[in-house]
Amino acid sequence: MFITVEGGEGVGKSTNIDYLQDYLRSRGVDLLLTREPGGTGLAEQIRELLVARREEGVDPLAELLLVFAARAQHLAKVIEPALAAGQWVLCDRFTDATYAYQAGGRGLSADLVRRLEVLVQGELRPDFTLLFDAPVEVGMERARERGSLDRFEEEEIAFFERVRQTYLRLARESSGRFRVIDAAQPLEAVREQLHSVCGELFDCWGVRH
Amino acid sequence: MFITVEGGEGVGKSTNIDYLQDYLRSRGVDLLLTREPGGTGLAEQIRELLVARREEGVDPLAELLLVFAARAQHLAKVIEPALAAGQWVLCDRFTDATYAYQAGGRGLSADLVRRLEVLVQGELRPDFTLLFDAPVEVGMERARERGSLDRFEEEEIAFFERVRQTYLRLARESSGRFRVIDAAQPLEAVREQLHSVCGELFDCWGVRH
Repeated sequence: MFITVEGGEGVGKSTNIDYLQDYLRSRGVDLLLTREPGGTGLAEQIRELLVARREEGVDPLAELLLVFAARAQHLAKVIEPALAAGQWVLCDRFTDATYAYQAGGRGLSADLVRRLEVLVQGELRPDFTLLFDAPVEVGMERARERGSLDRFEEEEIAFFERVRQTYLRLARESSGRFRVIDAAQPLEAVREQLHSVCGELFDCWGVRH
Repeated sequence: MFITVEGGEGVGKSTNIDYLQDYLRSRGVDLLLTREPGGTGLAEQIRELLVARREEGVDPLAELLLVFAARAQHLAKVIEPALAAGQWVLCDRFTDATYAYQAGGRGLSADLVRRLEVLVQGELRPDFTLLFDAPVEVGMERARERGSLDRFEEEEIAFFERVRQTYLRLARESSGRFRVIDAAQPLEAVREQLHSVCGELFDCWGVRH
């Protein structure tokens, strides 16, 4: 089973992924936790190129190709072998993030993203996607509290608004695969939503819980 | 005018590009000399990722996408602005190298390279391409003399044989654009060939020489 976790800046993705990971492992799931861009030595180096603040403007198409280069490496070396060995894969961001950030945020065409998605992934898609959603101001406030901002985090409000709206549209269009978590609520309420979603997952996939 | 210089390892490309650059400038050509992968800060960092020897095997598709990511950045930030400003661009390797190394050498399909070529370059192609050709053994001997080998240079003979044969096939298929320089000859004879090709170029493009 290939599960992805998505969401904008400061929506509490990291904290909740740790919790989700523990929860799934405690139920006996053989789980691989990974992230994008990244997940291999080379792919993490590509991530560093992507997030580094730099004088040189980054061409949006170059950015998109870097994201998919990291993804090709991650799929070939980590995700596909793990799935083939029967592990569950829990991935912090995947191609929905590319639609949200590079198409929605940067304004590249979704069709371009789709062509690269097919080229790199063939028919591989996540089985299940958790979208942590919160109003942009809430998320940015939290991201700022974490300290210095990277090349994406320093974008303006309108960019993150486009990212959020793209995520929500994807969730509506693929409502079978997506579950939206209201991440603006207090942590306890978010955890309750997570539990309920996990219960649904386990029922679906026949895991005893 | 967009001129590219191609060839395998150790064919004397660098020495002859310096010579060609001086020659063109001395005839009054406003010339920008650049190289691939590279040509901008970000693209040079991508080059470092590509050539670094590493334990982690590099997925051929990830390699191909990195090459085109560097190219997209290079085109947007350097090549296209220079051509638009009326400069000539002399580029050490371009997309023919991708056909030679990633399709010919690594065995990816030429059609895949072609799809990315169209996606990244649209209709932009070099006006003129100089291919420095020498038997693989000659080139590898010279490359070894230069010192430590990078991730490409340490490939086996058969890889470079496929690279060379792909280059020669491209030159036959696009004989209007390509001129093949026999780089196995002594330096003086190579220079004579270069002069003759430059003369032809200038006649073609109406530059007084």
